[in-house]
Amino acid sequence: MLDFIGRLTARQRDPRLLLGPGDDCALIRAAPGRAIVLTTDEMAEGTHFLLPRSTPEQIGRKLARINLSDMAGMGNAVPVAALCGAGLPESTPWQWVKEFTEALMSELNSINVSLAGGNLTRSDKIHVYLTVTGEAKPSETARRGGARPGDIIFGIGAFGEARAGLEILLSGKPAETRFKKLLDSFWLPPIQLEAGAVIGKRKLAAALMDNSDGLYKSVKTIAAASGCGALIEVNEDARSPALAAYCAARKKNWRDYVVSGGEDYGLVLAVNPRKARGFIETFPQACCLGVMTAGRDILFHENCKPRNFEHF
Amino acid sequence: MLDFIGRLTARQRDPRLLLGPGDDCALIRAAPGRAIVLTTDEMAEGTHFLLPRSTPEQIGRKLARINLSDMAGMGNAVPVAALCGAGLPESTPWQWVKEFTEALMSELNSINVSLAGGNLTRSDKIHVYLTVTGEAKPSETARRGGARPGDIIFGIGAFGEARAGLEILLSGKPAETRFKKLLDSFWLPPIQLEAGAVIGKRKLAAALMDNSDGLYKSVKTIAAASGCGALIEVNEDARSPALAAYCAARKKNWRDYVVSGGEDYGLVLAVNPRKARGFIETFPQACCLGVMTAGRDILFHENCKPRNFEHF
Repeated sequence: MLDFIGRLTARQRDPRLLLGPGDDCALIRAAPGRAIVLTTDEMAEGTHFLLPRSTPEQIGRKLARINLSDMAGMGNAVPVAALCGAGLPESTPWQWVKEFTEALMSELNSINVSLAGGNLTRSDKIHVYLTVTGEAKPSETARRGGARPGDIIFGIGAFGEARAGLEILLSGKPAETRFKKLLDSFWLPPIQLEAGAVIGKRKLAAALMDNSDGLYKSVKTIAAASGCGALIEVNEDARSPALAAYCAARKKNWRDYVVSGGEDYGLVLAVNPRKARGFIETFPQACCLGVMTAGRDILFHENCKPRNFEHF
Repeated sequence: MLDFIGRLTARQRDPRLLLGPGDDCALIRAAPGRAIVLTTDEMAEGTHFLLPRSTPEQIGRKLARINLSDMAGMGNAVPVAALCGAGLPESTPWQWVKEFTEALMSELNSINVSLAGGNLTRSDKIHVYLTVTGEAKPSETARRGGARPGDIIFGIGAFGEARAGLEILLSGKPAETRFKKLLDSFWLPPIQLEAGAVIGKRKLAAALMDNSDGLYKSVKTIAAASGCGALIEVNEDARSPALAAYCAARKKNWRDYVVSGGEDYGLVLAVNPRKARGFIETFPQACCLGVMTAGRDILFHENCKPRNFEHF
């Protein structure tokens, strides 16, 4: 297996990757004047995917994307290299490992990120993790704790689609053609690296994070880190056509999906009102999702108050 | 739980840690003229430890050490910061997480390494992983592939003790006092960061790696990476008093432990004969373990030929 990964990674020709994989450590050239950006995320069987329903390609591609999404959530951070760890049962077919690794590398290499090393261990169920390192000017990063009361909350990317996709997957029934996009939103969330880079370079965000656990949790996290509160208000801008069709067919409230649906992996940010116009002109696809407030409470406009807070 | 980790990590005051934990990514200051060194390693329940026999403190401390050992295996690499990931069953007691995290951080902080972030996920059994980033002058790193026929193979650290310790643990019986050191060798392997630094700075090694899977596998790895073979010859220098006493009591061949025992985490290196004298003067505790040869075979002096190759 290591031979196979060796051959696959030997095709990588990034001059920033000085050594790896195959030694005790990887060596990566540091960019002058840049800080090192580091993040890790994991997917575990039974929690993030079920076997054999999920393919190794789906898992490999999503693992790359959810890690890169954290880079996007830092502003103008350029991912450079990654280490992949896997815990695999002895019975894992060789073909599974091959397809997983090829998919992971295809995602990474498509944006010039090298697979620089990793670790393999035996475990009862499959889990896979990735650590991505990148580079950024600290002044072009955007953090979670900079929001102030009055800042406008914006979202970039689809909201609620991944949860709808997950529901279809868990139903066990084949997805209707018109809902296939929702499955893609779950398995192949679009990663907002370019948006993050523009936001970071132009310092458009007072606070920024990736939307991995749903809008409510993202806003709550930004509010807590910033020492303020928020009012969440979801209007039709946040309702994607695919989500609208799904919720109409299933008689569901689409706002529940937007507010509480996780794994969407877009961006949530707080924008100073003076910068809001410039932000909207740059990101006409962004939707307004509320406003940061004084105090510490997370309040909801009456049209989108979650009925069941136990989920949180 | 995140609150607790937040309080624990807030005490870290390394100016190189610009941000973390608690945001999408950690930010670490890059040292001018240094490359980024990156490694990851994992411990999984059932493979690397059994519960409840293993304490969270043992697991946390060992997780730090096995990762730092990879840094030592790179030569003069200075570890700076780490990300920790954990997959935990819902039933994991809070006390377990607390003790694990405190032990991990105590190991890291004792050598000025910050815990910069991580990830937490739900899983059926416990697994924990760490990614460590550090800095090094590439010219002061030592890799696996530089050995040449005629280079002398040296070892630094105890060989075979960890396997003996593991046997005592698996026996389920309490360890005799005279064998307690063997348990320490398994749970708290001494990490050779200082030795690695000197070897790297003085360019003493043609090839270097940490001895995580036993002498045979280490030599095999160096030989394969270097395109040569090796003759392994183990004399009494490699027999520690604790291992000698254990093998005498159990009527075992101590050389089997030295050659095939894993998890010792010392260093194995190939030294050009012209540098051997300087190396021995610098590391009088090192033991000579053989010589690199032409060809591709790994041969054994007849006194240490493993009887059972199926382990490999």
